[in-house]
Amino acid sequence: MNQPPTTGRRRRLKVRRVAIDTYRENVAYLHRDCAVYRAEEFRALSKIEIRNGRHRILAVLNVVDDDAIVARDELGLSDPTFAHLGAAPGAPVDVGHPVRPVSMDAVRRKIAGERLDQHAFDQIVADIAANRYSKPEIAAFIVATVQNELDRDEILYLTRAMVGSGERLDWQEPLVADKHCIGGIPGNRTSLLVVPIVAAHGLLIPKTSSRAITSPAGTADTMEVLADVELKIADLRRIVRRHRGCIAWGGTARLSPADDVMISVERPLGIDSQGQLVASILSKKVAAGSTHLLIDIPVGPTAKVRHMRDAQRLRKLFEYVGDQLGIHLEVIITDGRQPIGNGIGPVLEARDAMRVLQGDPAAPADLRQKALRLAGRIIEFDPDVRGGQGFTIARDILDSGRALAKMHAIMAAQGAPRHAYAPARRTFDMTSPRAGTVTGIDNLQLARIARYAGAPAAKGAGVDLHRKLGDRVRRGEPLYRVYAEFAADFRFARELCLQDSGYTIGNEADVPAGFA
Amino acid sequence: MNQPPTTGRRRRLKVRRVAIDTYRENVAYLHRDCAVYRAEEFRALSKIEIRNGRHRILAVLNVVDDDAIVARDELGLSDPTFAHLGAAPGAPVDVGHPVRPVSMDAVRRKIAGERLDQHAFDQIVADIAANRYSKPEIAAFIVATVQNELDRDEILYLTRAMVGSGERLDWQEPLVADKHCIGGIPGNRTSLLVVPIVAAHGLLIPKTSSRAITSPAGTADTMEVLADVELKIADLRRIVRRHRGCIAWGGTARLSPADDVMISVERPLGIDSQGQLVASILSKKVAAGSTHLLIDIPVGPTAKVRHMRDAQRLRKLFEYVGDQLGIHLEVIITDGRQPIGNGIGPVLEARDAMRVLQGDPAAPADLRQKALRLAGRIIEFDPDVRGGQGFTIARDILDSGRALAKMHAIMAAQGAPRHAYAPARRTFDMTSPRAGTVTGIDNLQLARIARYAGAPAAKGAGVDLHRKLGDRVRRGEPLYRVYAEFAADFRFARELCLQDSGYTIGNEADVPAGFA
Repeated sequence: MNQPPTTGRRRRLKVRRVAIDTYRENVAYLHRDCAVYRAEEFRALSKIEIRNGRHRILAVLNVVDDDAIVARDELGLSDPTFAHLGAAPGAPVDVGHPVRPVSMDAVRRKIAGERLDQHAFDQIVADIAANRYSKPEIAAFIVATVQNELDRDEILYLTRAMVGSGERLDWQEPLVADKHCIGGIPGNRTSLLVVPIVAAHGLLIPKTSSRAITSPAGTADTMEVLADVELKIADLRRIVRRHRGCIAWGGTARLSPADDVMISVERPLGIDSQGQLVASILSKKVAAGSTHLLIDIPVGPTAKVRHMRDAQRLRKLFEYVGDQLGIHLEVIITDGRQPIGNGIGPVLEARDAMRVLQGDPAAPADLRQKALRLAGRIIEFDPDVRGGQGFTIARDILDSGRALAKMHAIMAAQGAPRHAYAPARRTFDMTSPRAGTVTGIDNLQLARIARYAGAPAAKGAGVDLHRKLGDRVRRGEPLYRVYAEFAADFRFARELCLQDSGYTIGNEADVPAGFA
Repeated sequence: MNQPPTTGRRRRLKVRRVAIDTYRENVAYLHRDCAVYRAEEFRALSKIEIRNGRHRILAVLNVVDDDAIVARDELGLSDPTFAHLGAAPGAPVDVGHPVRPVSMDAVRRKIAGERLDQHAFDQIVADIAANRYSKPEIAAFIVATVQNELDRDEILYLTRAMVGSGERLDWQEPLVADKHCIGGIPGNRTSLLVVPIVAAHGLLIPKTSSRAITSPAGTADTMEVLADVELKIADLRRIVRRHRGCIAWGGTARLSPADDVMISVERPLGIDSQGQLVASILSKKVAAGSTHLLIDIPVGPTAKVRHMRDAQRLRKLFEYVGDQLGIHLEVIITDGRQPIGNGIGPVLEARDAMRVLQGDPAAPADLRQKALRLAGRIIEFDPDVRGGQGFTIARDILDSGRALAKMHAIMAAQGAPRHAYAPARRTFDMTSPRAGTVTGIDNLQLARIARYAGAPAAKGAGVDLHRKLGDRVRRGEPLYRVYAEFAADFRFARELCLQDSGYTIGNEADVPAGFA
């Protein structure tokens, strides 16, 4: 493929910030009667290239007929686009045909069924990280990797390429522990327990986590209820050195930036690719400096992984790629039949976690049990701990109050939350239509209800489960309570609940068997 | 998959047109401090649904911090979005979570390797035509059909679904002729010759054609130099009844609207799918009311189809689907080694066609020859014409001046062009770096140069070839002349030419063999 030229121009436009938030998409605004360029010239292009000196970004072009938005000698940039370019208002820019990403040739080869090598993945990932792919191009790459499935070496190449696309943290210690759940189970906020337990034991566990994309809460969203999570890297290092752990938002470091771009397209498509999943998780963890990693794969009829055979296959992939990358990796397959804990949504999940730490009798037993199990396995990464002793050590740390003390220390070090949060004011209860036993709770539907109710943007919004699998319930007794901050969300969520509560009430004999 | 509710709201926003042209994308603008909705509420959604009474459209949401663009009680809509909704300024609208297209389930099944039935294709195509798919979702569907290749029955289902997604013309005659070239060969503007020849013979040939998407000229762009092409359906009918033919833009009729949506994503991706190609072409032709269709498949090293075996496979697909749809279809495989004629770009191509019609000695012989061959085959659709006589009849019509007279009649009936067009003012010649014979002309590069020079938006812009395959050339003699209207285009095109002229100069013995 030929590379169109992208040389400079003599005539230039002045940059103007347009107060429109185009979210993840770069958008530029050109006046229809622009003094320098004809708007039509760029019409056939999916993107244009904007240059300020040596700095270049790509953007979708919109043509404007309103001098109030952009003048004839200006190039308007939406909020995020303006931030990406990093030029001062009024700075000179020129506009040109973008260099088409050469690596799309490799994507087309993958679509045609070829196996790609490390070089091809390096090129693709670098172009994606540099925002050179349009969303349809990213979708094409993702679907290509689903259909002509990535073999395990291709997954390794993809992971390495993703690590190489961004920054990499180095904690200067031989053992840096971390855990990751592949997701899909609402309320599964074990990190808020595992980190203080493991850190109290003395292992280093600097947890950087993400915000929710399509789920009702990410670990960062939930921790934000208890402490500040937007920390500078230097502060993060200081806190971790002092307290052996942290629970912070990972977005301040540029860790595997290509992953963020790909996920923003992949999640809304609802397409699952085991290869993309493994590369996504491991690239983030390797870039975050982890040396010892515990992966949690929940299995259940409405979990991300629905059959044990798929979980085993996924486990092998994690192990293979982890070994090749030189990290110590273990996989644990857990019960994903229903949400973990009671709360779904940042405030309600933070409440559950604090109740477990505080030894509150109202604390959800399943969350406590799962956190101890995970923390125990991580503690066994410690060469001084005898195999099989981790769970007991973790339980002692939790029951002695040392985990709570550690959590308070970490919260204090990270700083107070930027706002005070409480459960949302508007509530309604979903009640059981008949007497019986809870035989099914749909993870996807409960997550959807919590999102409609406003989580995670409204931190106090969400769902609080009053009944779990196997619990008996009488007709008219509440199954769960929905919390919403805003009237519109309240209506949206209630309509969704009435359509499908997410609960199945049946006979005790029909409760599906768990395992593990 | 559950269908989120999309019920009405009591509180409403007022519609406002925002003078931003977002081209093929619907975009809505909501103030960050909107009085009715929280902007964050919709952040996780790829699209929102906007409702004005029973009319609903989907749009991407942008959040605005500038009261001059949109006020707190307004919902701004970009130009095309405002037109799509069709509400008056200030009309009340509400905003909600969109119904997710159910048919994405079928796309995911296709990705997983399943064969889809007619019902699944009907659902997918209806959702695409209703603009319910995001661009990444469309890309996912396209890639899925490339990788898990559509079998011929699936192509038939897709074609039928696409025909069903829009309007259908009925010319009330038993024989409605048409031709279509699968594209990729610059300058291949045979329709401007075939239509007047065939119409002069007396067959009905109502040609509706498209504008260029990624090429330097479409038939509609070129005809627009000679006559008005944006005709109302009623006028089209009147002209065709009177003159037996027309050459008009097909965009005024809603023929296979899903095709336009898919092509807008597929072309920039540069992904070729034989199934999509067959469905795209045949759905447009069946919707346009054609009963007899000639398909031209050019083959050459830089054509869309590069090997004879691929052309034969494509031919079988066209024949199978055409037969099932009940249209009489013939396929002709032609020489696609180089551009046809001399001009590339609307004005230059129109000039070539008129020179052939006028019997001008400067007329390009290859364009004349190809047009006669195609016209001859179409004339043989006439039951009164003996097999093998079509070419002679076509040549007699052309050489007698009857084709020119017919073209003048059609041009007059369609009306004068809306502007006067001439070759662009800025020109430069690309000269041969050495003496030798032209052994290769890269269709893709020449098309790209013409586009960079400004075609088709600048109708006078483009490339005029002075040498074709097998021609001898001396060092410093011009290979072609580039025409540009604007200084920026001029520079862009020249830089691209200097990087790669698109011509190979070698020995006479190395001229690739043609065929057909």
